[in-house]
Amino acid sequence: MTIKVAIVGATGYTGAELLRLLSGHPEASVEVITSRGEAGRPVAELYPNLRGSCELRFSEPDEQQLAGCDVVFFATPHGVAQATVPALLARGVRVIDLSADFRIRDVALWEQWYNQPHAAPALVADAVYGLPEVNRAAIREAQLIACPGCYPTSVQLGLLPLLEAGCIDTRDVIANSASGATGAGRQASVATLLTEISDSFKAYAASGHRHLPEIEQGLADIAGGPVGLTFVPHLLPINRGIHTTLYANLSDPSVDLQALFEDRFADEPFVDVLPAGSHPETRSVRGANVARIAVHRPQGGNKVVVLVVEDNLTKGASGQAIQCMNIMFGLDERAGLAASALLP
Amino acid sequence: MTIKVAIVGATGYTGAELLRLLSGHPEASVEVITSRGEAGRPVAELYPNLRGSCELRFSEPDEQQLAGCDVVFFATPHGVAQATVPALLARGVRVIDLSADFRIRDVALWEQWYNQPHAAPALVADAVYGLPEVNRAAIREAQLIACPGCYPTSVQLGLLPLLEAGCIDTRDVIANSASGATGAGRQASVATLLTEISDSFKAYAASGHRHLPEIEQGLADIAGGPVGLTFVPHLLPINRGIHTTLYANLSDPSVDLQALFEDRFADEPFVDVLPAGSHPETRSVRGANVARIAVHRPQGGNKVVVLVVEDNLTKGASGQAIQCMNIMFGLDERAGLAASALLP
Amino acid sequence: MTIKVAIVGATGYTGAELLRLLSGHPEASVEVITSRGEAGRPVAELYPNLRGSCELRFSEPDEQQLAGCDVVFFATPHGVAQATVPALLARGVRVIDLSADFRIRDVALWEQWYNQPHAAPALVADAVYGLPEVNRAAIREAQLIACPGCYPTSVQLGLLPLLEAGCIDTRDVIANSASGATGAGRQASVATLLTEISDSFKAYAASGHRHLPEIEQGLADIAGGPVGLTFVPHLLPINRGIHTTLYANLSDPSVDLQALFEDRFADEPFVDVLPAGSHPETRSVRGANVARIAVHRPQGGNKVVVLVVEDNLTKGASGQAIQCMNIMFGLDERAGLAASALLP
Amino acid sequence: MTIKVAIVGATGYTGAELLRLLSGHPEASVEVITSRGEAGRPVAELYPNLRGSCELRFSEPDEQQLAGCDVVFFATPHGVAQATVPALLARGVRVIDLSADFRIRDVALWEQWYNQPHAAPALVADAVYGLPEVNRAAIREAQLIACPGCYPTSVQLGLLPLLEAGCIDTRDVIANSASGATGAGRQASVATLLTEISDSFKAYAASGHRHLPEIEQGLADIAGGPVGLTFVPHLLPINRGIHTTLYANLSDPSVDLQALFEDRFADEPFVDVLPAGSHPETRSVRGANVARIAVHRPQGGNKVVVLVVEDNLTKGASGQAIQCMNIMFGLDERAGLAASALLP
Repeated sequence: MTIKVAIVGATGYTGAELLRLLSGHPEASVEVITSRGEAGRPVAELYPNLRGSCELRFSEPDEQQLAGCDVVFFATPHGVAQATVPALLARGVRVIDLSADFRIRDVALWEQWYNQPHAAPALVADAVYGLPEVNRAAIREAQLIACPGCYPTSVQLGLLPLLEAGCIDTRDVIANSASGATGAGRQASVATLLTEISDSFKAYAASGHRHLPEIEQGLADIAGGPVGLTFVPHLLPINRGIHTTLYANLSDPSVDLQALFEDRFADEPFVDVLPAGSHPETRSVRGANVARIAVHRPQGGNKVVVLVVEDNLTKGASGQAIQCMNIMFGLDERAGLAASALLP
Repeated sequence: MTIKVAIVGATGYTGAELLRLLSGHPEASVEVITSRGEAGRPVAELYPNLRGSCELRFSEPDEQQLAGCDVVFFATPHGVAQATVPALLARGVRVIDLSADFRIRDVALWEQWYNQPHAAPALVADAVYGLPEVNRAAIREAQLIACPGCYPTSVQLGLLPLLEAGCIDTRDVIANSASGATGAGRQASVATLLTEISDSFKAYAASGHRHLPEIEQGLADIAGGPVGLTFVPHLLPINRGIHTTLYANLSDPSVDLQALFEDRFADEPFVDVLPAGSHPETRSVRGANVARIAVHRPQGGNKVVVLVVEDNLTKGASGQAIQCMNIMFGLDERAGLAASALLP
Repeated sequence: MTIKVAIVGATGYTGAELLRLLSGHPEASVEVITSRGEAGRPVAELYPNLRGSCELRFSEPDEQQLAGCDVVFFATPHGVAQATVPALLARGVRVIDLSADFRIRDVALWEQWYNQPHAAPALVADAVYGLPEVNRAAIREAQLIACPGCYPTSVQLGLLPLLEAGCIDTRDVIANSASGATGAGRQASVATLLTEISDSFKAYAASGHRHLPEIEQGLADIAGGPVGLTFVPHLLPINRGIHTTLYANLSDPSVDLQALFEDRFADEPFVDVLPAGSHPETRSVRGANVARIAVHRPQGGNKVVVLVVEDNLTKGASGQAIQCMNIMFGLDERAGLAASALLP
Repeated sequence: MTIKVAIVGATGYTGAELLRLLSGHPEASVEVITSRGEAGRPVAELYPNLRGSCELRFSEPDEQQLAGCDVVFFATPHGVAQATVPALLARGVRVIDLSADFRIRDVALWEQWYNQPHAAPALVADAVYGLPEVNRAAIREAQLIACPGCYPTSVQLGLLPLLEAGCIDTRDVIANSASGATGAGRQASVATLLTEISDSFKAYAASGHRHLPEIEQGLADIAGGPVGLTFVPHLLPINRGIHTTLYANLSDPSVDLQALFEDRFADEPFVDVLPAGSHPETRSVRGANVARIAVHRPQGGNKVVVLVVEDNLTKGASGQAIQCMNIMFGLDERAGLAASALLP
């Protein structure tokens, strides 16, 4: 059986990454790709890497067509999925939403950060947060997946063993993250021209980023109580890759950090704990659905430093979404996701 | 049946690319990876992208071990393969050499450009030049393949339809090429530090590059006579990718260039002729075994301009080598080579 | 005496470069910077490198204010200067136009390539083409300077000695150029996002670029007759820098090319002929008002290859404009332009 | 009077930056540039940006020659200056050392981190730490300056107002830094090839970096007691620029952070406090001797986040060294250092 897939809003980079990955998936076939702006245009015209492997054209979104698929991915800006998802769910289609629409359970909090009313608040509670390392069982049964954001994936994976083990002071955790520019999307803008951000580096949103409430919710779920987090994102002059450097104070200095991390992720197909003393590079996950993690304890003191890399478009978005699809449909979780990162 | 593969000299970038591509090949298995300098070290320590997909360690080169494989790839500097290949061929192993050792039939010419005596001159005539678009039948029967250089692949593919059709003046052809820095290899050097070549661009070897005699030989084979070529390579501040801009004067102005190119490559799985008016980007072939080509006739005049892109490590080296292997062993030519380029 | 300067349209990169260079000019002072879109905003908000050295705010264009200055630079898109320049000239102000408005003497040709009627055709004949190496005397007396385009500067400087000496076949000259992305300007667009053009390389406008008629006119002026040129520009994934590789056939093979170039530019303050065998790098002119040139004769044959680098914003635009100003006002031609390139 | 300058070890990037900056200094003249490896070679051959502005050749180090200068800069690896400096000081020459040799007052600590005996321990106490914002008066009288490291400059400037005001908890301060690759120097190595570090990002030395004891000493001097610091450096795929993100907990939540920073640096010519809400970019200081700083208080909580950018070669090394020279010789502190950053 081949899973019939539709992608809504595939003109952006997460949509393109879904297409790239699904073009090599042995048990899924993309049937519909919608875009209001590009309807009628061959997909491969926009993404020349897909010439020869994707013969589809963008089409106008059409509920009937989408309902004929087994699963619909939304690779849309926030606010779009919530308007269409209810009808699809009602027709029995499964939905994997890569946007922020269903990530935050507290609807009022969502409305505050995204500055608009939520169009489908009743569905929020039914959405399963698509982080397989935390929620695999629930993902298996889900009708609606809210895929984690790229930064939140890296922060949660890096803190998971520490929070589950209860060995850090949860009142003061710092996540210093840096992302490639694909994280900013594919809209015409001066701010992300090559001439504005190449050969440079800066922080942004130091006073508050929309991924903060999502991360706080996820960490609280894991820790069983609130986690005091400071999160500062930075912009890297590269296309792909997130690097997150996490800082926390050990409440239990006797813990063997290396063993703790290796044990926690031993059975995870897409989390790789590096040997002690390592420093993961973003290039080592370029295009691959894997997070690589190293844990340090500088000078043997009480501070734990966790280094996490992922490709923001892959494990941070589209790869993880396909991982969820594989789980939902009972496939090998690695199907279509086994390719090695492109290095150099 | 799974083809048993050995790779000699896999610490460089073409070796790493062989490993990356072969790790996803359905009918080949890498059994031996040799490196004198890194013997004993896990391959994935050098190439962290292969963690989880390659469990091998580098080993000392051992003829017995190599002879136990079906095919041996040489990803070594020039001068290495010619010393070892004769013994392997004598034992019935097939050899695919990615270096320059067997590319040039005129041994004296080789010795002049490479400034050393050739260690196996008797074998040179038996080597088949591994450009499938020209030599597919001979590759099928070959024991020893001399893989084309990265620049020569791009120049020959771009001129192939024009030379076969006899529609250009062969006395004055210009190949203006630019390559990513992986073309310079993975040796410690000041000249290729990020701090020396990033954010910059330059020509090099304008007075004569070692790929020139190889290109001239290949073009002469295709044209059935000498082709007067000027070749100037340039260094791009990127990792992967070759872009070649070819200039020639039409001797037959009535030719339909677009049709000529489309027809010539219609059945080629790894050459993509873009629609009229296009400009191929190196990113569109990043990590993919494909050359994309566009043909222009500025202002409708007598000058033809051909634009060719390839990934120097893939269609320009390791991907093409695997394509040859597929042909030699009667596999689907696309086996292990079907993945789309990584974009963005 | 300090020269009072106004800049019209200083929100783009050539405007920013004028500000950067003039902030260190010992005998010029920027008094007015206009921008309709940014009127009222401090210049240093847009260009944080100027914090502390430029206290001005953008203002609405005002003829009275502009007329109070000694010289007005136009750093505007084509079509803007031609509407305002006549009034300024009538009031005795000198004008240096960095746009294409007054570069082409054949008004009909201009209108064809720029697809709009020219608003001040009568002035075109009075404009002096601001290439000091060719037109120094005329620049000294000029009221209106048409600054050369970035590509045309590199092509003309590289061919100047050859055309003046009459030692090449002028029927078939090739200019293969590559430019950093600042050449595309500072407008919001998808096509020049970092995520679209970094880590990649491509040709563009292979069938015809707007700089072509300007180059053809300039070369014909130098050669005393038409020059058959093929010009293909390419886009580099860097901010600044143009590299042009020129190809021509020698009609006089006895010429000493190195001496020819060194002699021609011996007294030029901003053209540097490199030693024989050199390959200029774009980084060697980053931010500096200099063109560096090397000349090659591959394998001693009849083809001459000239390599030219310049910073497209400096010698290719704003630096050259200031060089013209220095000449017009009888200053040391190097005033404000003596800083070394930023390397690495 | 013109100050006669010698530079020892000018083949590296801090040496090249000294040459670039001093070539535009109105009151200093470089007389001697030494390099054992490059003796006899024109400096401009190694650094083509200096063609036309530096006619010197590298020479063998010669004490007599050095002693004929007013000031000697050491741009050498650690361990070199300490062997030569005593003799120069004895002859009355002033010395500005850009290496780590005299930065750490605790000689045993130096020997531990640098893993070698110190050759001039008696001089360590006489060296003045060359951070003008802290030590201007002592610099004025100094014979021997120990220039701060690049990371330490950014960390100390960013924490200076907070520590002087006593408004943060000094037991737990985090410095998350990222540096361009020029920080790794100009030695042949695989690890810093473009092909190894471009298009990627990673932390390094997370368990302990040699700049740590220097930073701890500097912070303790400012705070009047030990400061508990966690310092994690990262490697950016760019040439120049350091970005440091500092995290601390406020002990006095009533403090007006923006006013505190603006007041502290109001009279500093080379520290620029950005308006509230800003995020400094490394490109805004490219090639300029300035640090730009922004201070944030996320969600109005108790955490203070300070963002600092500098050019590691300029304010982080050679520019600051010249700033010290200006102070030592009673010149305008801005002499030769006033140029704006190169942007874009």
